Amino acid sequence: MRTASAGPEIERLMALLAKLPGLGPRSARRAALHLLGKRDSLMRPLAEALGDAADKIGACSECGNLDVTNPCAVCASPGRQPAALCVVETVGDLWALERAGAFKGRYHVLGGVLSALDGVRPDDLNIAKLIERAARDEIVEIVLALNATVDGQTTAHYLADKLAPTGVSVTSLARGVPVGGELDYLDDGTLAAAFRSRAAV
Amino acid sequence: MRTASAGPEIERLMALLAKLPGLGPRSARRAALHLLGKRDSLMRPLAEALGDAADKIGACSECGNLDVTNPCAVCASPGRQPAALCVVETVGDLWALERAGAFKGRYHVLGGVLSALDGVRPDDLNIAKLIERAARDEIVEIVLALNATVDGQTTAHYLADKLAPTGVSVTSLARGVPVGGELDYLDDGTLAAAFRSRAAV
Ligand SMILES: [Zn+2]
Ligand SMILES: [Zn+2]
Repeated sequence: MRTASAGPEIERLMALLAKLPGLGPRSARRAALHLLGKRDSLMRPLAEALGDAADKIGACSECGNLDVTNPCAVCASPGRQPAALCVVETVGDLWALERAGAFKGRYHVLGGVLSALDGVRPDDLNIAKLIERAARDEIVEIVLALNATVDGQTTAHYLADKLAPTGVSVTSLARGVPVGGELDYLDDGTLAAAFRSRAAV
Repeated sequence: MRTASAGPEIERLMALLAKLPGLGPRSARRAALHLLGKRDSLMRPLAEALGDAADKIGACSECGNLDVTNPCAVCASPGRQPAALCVVETVGDLWALERAGAFKGRYHVLGGVLSALDGVRPDDLNIAKLIERAARDEIVEIVLALNATVDGQTTAHYLADKLAPTGVSVTSLARGVPVGGELDYLDDGTLAAAFRSRAAV
């Protein structure tokens, strides 16, 4: 898209903004103009916050959560119940469950789900580490909090098979999650209710 | 909104992203996670592009357009017709007209419109400079390309009165612009047609 007189600096800025989820080319243009109008109150602080977060935030080597510390604050917290792990697809899902306050154990972020269509195989996901964690003495229950999509449920069955030898109880969220729904879009009450009525896989 | 374990760095990033037009708290969270997953291909380049644009891009002291040079590329171009000025509310509107290729003269960015409700008065807009430019010998026509809103039309009448003593022909875009419509949302063809059938105010 030609923007006439704006020059390569703003073209580049708009092209990068347009790569954010939820922003297309038009809204990226509006965002760029908005930023240029709030240079000191928004544009420079955002540049700094992006660089700062890129430098300081990393994946927890234990669970895959994003945090400034490794292990992350959840893994390091002595207040979390040691007997339960909750398996989620993404860090966004972990945050959604934390907001719902539904779970007091620790998490395991898979980094996606198995998908024939997208070519995602078990080795592409954070599964080996999950099996390792599940085999630890203190773990009694593993809650599979995967999206209620075909790929999510396929992955849940795959994990249930893989976890069977460890002897831990493998549960999944109750069918309060709408079919085809994504955890990150659910209200906290629904998410908490689905957590409470979780059942054996 | 509590995001549990993410820490102040990511809270700050999400709060700043949520200030962009088109991104609310939820989409800012998704954007932040998306960025953290594309640290080297998107997050750091965006930080750099923001800082770069903030440093290099400024308002043209002649017309109010945003560019890396002052005067801007449009004002400095010897290829633009010297007899006509097109008055727009925002730089986004200037870009929309340039994309439509409807106008070959130069621009004047008001920086908004008069508004009793928002307390925007003539002194708050780039009007004195417009009168100064209109009084120059070479200017024959001033096209008022303001949004077809009540405030836009009030501003057009105010400017037509102010410009009358200069003797230039003051025109406005034809009523091809939908009532209540904003220029930046129009397709190029409509914008070009409205430009062609502009009429005296
Ligand atoms: Zn962790
Ligand atoms: Zn200019």
